[in-house]
Amino acid sequence: SLDSVVEKKIKDVLNGLECNPSATAKKLVCTSITNSGKLSSCPAEMSVTGCACGYACGSWDVRNENTCHCQCSVVDWTTARCCHLA
Amino acid sequence: SLDSVVEKKIKDVLNGLECNPSATAKKLVCTSITNSGKLSSCPAEMSVTGCACGYACGSWDVRNENTCHCQCSVVDWTTARCCHLA
Amino acid sequence: SLDSVVEKKIKDVLNGLECNPSATAKKLVCTSITNSGKLSSCPAEMSVTGCACGYACGSWDVRNENTCHCQCSVVDWTTARCCHLA
Repeated sequence: SLDSVVEKKIKDVLNGLECNPSATAKKLVCTSITNSGKLSSCPAEMSVTGCACGYACGSWDVRNENTCHCQCSVVDWTTARCCHLA
Repeated sequence: SLDSVVEKKIKDVLNGLECNPSATAKKLVCTSITNSGKLSSCPAEMSVTGCACGYACGSWDVRNENTCHCQCSVVDWTTARCCHLA
Repeated sequence: SLDSVVEKKIKDVLNGLECNPSATAKKLVCTSITNSGKLSSCPAEMSVTGCACGYACGSWDVRNENTCHCQCSVVDWTTARCCHLA
């Protein structure tokens, strides 16, 4: 019938556009990147959501959008917590 | 007309797929989970974006994807900051 | 043909619904808001994913959904790490 032809066509187009539920159901995915020293960066496609520092230090800032910088005078490691939609 | 039949059909399919704007407009929603001790976990469907620790401690790591672990020798509470799309 | 009429119609409707791939491809975007003192808030449409504090303090909590509160007795600045989908 015309009805089923149109419905099939719609589903074909939606699949082509990756506009079906499974394609649009993105999740927040996070990982940690740890480096020695006072700096640690997220991969380019991820965003910094928080940072952790060695020597109990809780003072940090984010530089150049994607790099954690621990500010205490003595810090032996820095972790960037990095998230994106996937 | 054929045109309006097709348009109605498309809207029916889109609604069924929850592919309309209101269904796809997800938001980032975050909450805090605090526990006594050095460990605190996010619910399974949420991701850890950062952690906080008692006794001023800023040194933490994320274990098993969804658990904050505060590393300082004395820590009386741990908070996991947990986010997901909703 | 009927086929191409239906396909054009589908694309028109999808564009009207902003349901095409470019419209639905949201990213996680984050920024930092720093204030002097022990409190710093994210803009209303953003969520707190983590906090940083002056004087090396790593003890913080989130108040009223969008405000970082640093808990140590001496803290000269507070940063809220704020994210949303854009």
